[in-house]
Amino acid sequence: MRIYLDHAATTPIRPEAAAAVAEGMGKWANPSSPHAEGRAARAALEDARARTAASLGWPHELIFTSGASESAAMALARAKGGARLVSAVEHDSVLQALPDAEILPVRPDGALDLDVLEEAVDGRERPVVAVQAINSETGNGQDLDAIVRIVHSADGLLLVDAAQSAGKFALPAGADMVILSAHKFGGPPGVGALLVKDFAMLAPSSGQERGYRRGTENLPGALGLAAALEACSAPYLDPAVLEPITERLAPAIARLGGMRLADRLAAPTPYIEAIAMPDMSGSAQLMCFDMAGFAVSQGSACSSGSLKRSHVLQAMGLDDELASRIIRVSFGWSTTREEVERFCDSWIALAEGSGARAA
Amino acid sequence: MRIYLDHAATTPIRPEAAAAVAEGMGKWANPSSPHAEGRAARAALEDARARTAASLGWPHELIFTSGASESAAMALARAKGGARLVSAVEHDSVLQALPDAEILPVRPDGALDLDVLEEAVDGRERPVVAVQAINSETGNGQDLDAIVRIVHSADGLLLVDAAQSAGKFALPAGADMVILSAHKFGGPPGVGALLVKDFAMLAPSSGQERGYRRGTENLPGALGLAAALEACSAPYLDPAVLEPITERLAPAIARLGGMRLADRLAAPTPYIEAIAMPDMSGSAQLMCFDMAGFAVSQGSACSSGSLKRSHVLQAMGLDDELASRIIRVSFGWSTTREEVERFCDSWIALAEGSGARAA
Repeated sequence: MRIYLDHAATTPIRPEAAAAVAEGMGKWANPSSPHAEGRAARAALEDARARTAASLGWPHELIFTSGASESAAMALARAKGGARLVSAVEHDSVLQALPDAEILPVRPDGALDLDVLEEAVDGRERPVVAVQAINSETGNGQDLDAIVRIVHSADGLLLVDAAQSAGKFALPAGADMVILSAHKFGGPPGVGALLVKDFAMLAPSSGQERGYRRGTENLPGALGLAAALEACSAPYLDPAVLEPITERLAPAIARLGGMRLADRLAAPTPYIEAIAMPDMSGSAQLMCFDMAGFAVSQGSACSSGSLKRSHVLQAMGLDDELASRIIRVSFGWSTTREEVERFCDSWIALAEGSGARAA
Repeated sequence: MRIYLDHAATTPIRPEAAAAVAEGMGKWANPSSPHAEGRAARAALEDARARTAASLGWPHELIFTSGASESAAMALARAKGGARLVSAVEHDSVLQALPDAEILPVRPDGALDLDVLEEAVDGRERPVVAVQAINSETGNGQDLDAIVRIVHSADGLLLVDAAQSAGKFALPAGADMVILSAHKFGGPPGVGALLVKDFAMLAPSSGQERGYRRGTENLPGALGLAAALEACSAPYLDPAVLEPITERLAPAIARLGGMRLADRLAAPTPYIEAIAMPDMSGSAQLMCFDMAGFAVSQGSACSSGSLKRSHVLQAMGLDDELASRIIRVSFGWSTTREEVERFCDSWIALAEGSGARAA
């Protein structure tokens, strides 16, 4: 039996979402067609949109996209504002969408440096600032209330990447645009959304989605996204499931000379843990855990093919040697306490063994 | 019982494709993750890619995208060439992706004017020419063999929009890049492909799909696309299904003073018919047919929300009044001879009635 602890890369599709996609495939007409079949598909699409917005508590606009990467590229390219500023710990898809964006540094605790942000937006004409709600590699949350105050006081627009937080935590109050990806909260892959407070903030392109996106609408995907969000509970995961991390693993990490990154973060959140093992590289750990039946990761899946260092850990000023020993363990809606306990056992056994080998 | 004859807008998802998507949702891991679950998803994705390429007879590169609109935008933005030239009858998604492209005129029979093309590419440095295989509004096919010779003799690149032809007809020999959309041949919406003869022809972005596309791969979509293509038969539709069009409807159109656009086209193809009724606007016909249980259309679904005139019919120099009386009837894998017969009956009855009213 395998134990999957890489929910930040993708989480299993929820049965409710799979059923909604399957049902949606029966509503195959083109939602832009004016005949009865098209109108029925349109009604189903607008129902998915309304249910998604209601689940999120977002009483504004919502554009369905093919996922977070497209949402990010759309927002950064078409936000009606001036200079683009993005935090140094944003997801690759954000950083690569706009290689010329100004990079905002973070502190060693992962938090955006608010003094630097304040200076950076000062005197700029309607700056567009992109900040993630929760970092996909560390689980650190940003102080979005403070960030939105600073950005808005400079008449700027705040774009929040909520790929890791949507469905788990409330949307940040005050964000002007928000990026979502369905497969991060139990929806199907290939569908996401860009939430927009007011269409006046975003230049249209043409085509579907009220002129904001070209391409036949993915109705099964939209229905799957809506169903997945509606299936998210609060809390996302019973806190008891993760108790072994704090009660058992954290003391062992300290005792064995490892490092739990959450201890150093400004605002750790519960579903992503970054943990350094003494004396063993992250990639060696990955192989050991994989052979032992655990799926864990090093950094984000999107850049895991490349062997480059994590830009997130670098931006936090983490020592390269320490960073190379970090793996990411992430939890999702299907995670059980037994899975977490078994991972803790295995981590401790591997760390004790690797310590013994190193000794 | 409704009769759906708007397969050029979208065609019902084939049972084989729906089953492949449903099965693919069980392979939910991130294909870019290096653990066992990720490797299994990766293997399934590469299998979908290989099967798609084999079905198409395309022994080159294949990038999965979110659909034809994304494929077109990607190819036009990143083809390693100079001036962009697109035919005047291309799909809106192509024309709008690159509003500054040079427009190549077509003749009244819908064929690209090859003399103008020859002049247009002459002396240009590696021009990039976009031409559709089959027009979505008229069903006219282009002489791609001649076009590819002209484009290649100028050291140019030919991008073929095969959204309406893939699965139905062989891919054009010699095309450098080809655009596909799964939902046009019975696959799910939200997935398509860009075929590329050689990656040296296309500038990479970063991210997934060997660095050519950002975004977690849509594995269920890719599996659905592959399954739909494999389910396409040759011929796509038994010719007997469409016999009532030529045997019964065509003579009635002539007798009643209507117009079958196929009679005027350089290279009509069987699955899309554009037909003008005497004395009744296309939009009125649409309503009548819809109430009578038929889903037909006017132009493409993508621009049907807007009431503008068809840029395709305009480019062919068709009289506005005549163009306003044209509807599109399109056939797909699920079309039966009885459906076609019943449509012919209804068209004739409506034309006779409208003639009677006008008289």
